[in-house]
Amino acid sequence: MSEPTSAYRFAVNVTPKPGILDPQGKAVERSLPHLGLAGVSGVRVGRRVELTVAAADEPAARAIVDRLAGELLSNPLMEQYEVEALGEAPAPAAAGATS
Amino acid sequence: MSEPTSAYRFAVNVTPKPGILDPQGKAVERSLPHLGLAGVSGVRVGRRVELTVAAADEPAARAIVDRLAGELLSNPLMEQYEVEALGEAPAPAAAGATS
Repeated sequence: MSEPTSAYRFAVNVTPKPGILDPQGKAVERSLPHLGLAGVSGVRVGRRVELTVAAADEPAARAIVDRLAGELLSNPLMEQYEVEALGEAPAPAAAGATS
Repeated sequence: MSEPTSAYRFAVNVTPKPGILDPQGKAVERSLPHLGLAGVSGVRVGRRVELTVAAADEPAARAIVDRLAGELLSNPLMEQYEVEALGEAPAPAAAGATS
């Protein structure tokens, strides 16, 4: 195993694929009149997962995030994901350091 | 009511506040060894809501998104949110146009 030299923070944005029914998004749209808000449409509700990866460099860290996003964080039949780099993490956090 | 002239797409990223326990994030971290992945820490699971707002201009649209994010999409006691502008929407979508 190679020494990790840096820690990188990423976000994985998981959203329902176009055409897939999104009941949570519809529920938000139906709540809008109660708030007195108009002009809002196309609401899609997904997940955002933020995480830190310790790896030798940014491409290596991104490869881990890609695997995680495709195999654990999203359902490839109904969801799509997008990986967003949030920059280098201030310090490599030990796993389980915060509760 | 003023005429909306454009439609803008936004994302609202809702994440647990620092210090707030995130059981979903912990569940992801505990799944990592089963996938053979190491070096991942600080996992926080939140929501990502994407929506289109028809308004006179971008600041007016953002004001609507801010109200929605604070009053409906997040729990201000436990969650924080961030509004991300995704640019002008291709065409003002009619509410309920897609299922």
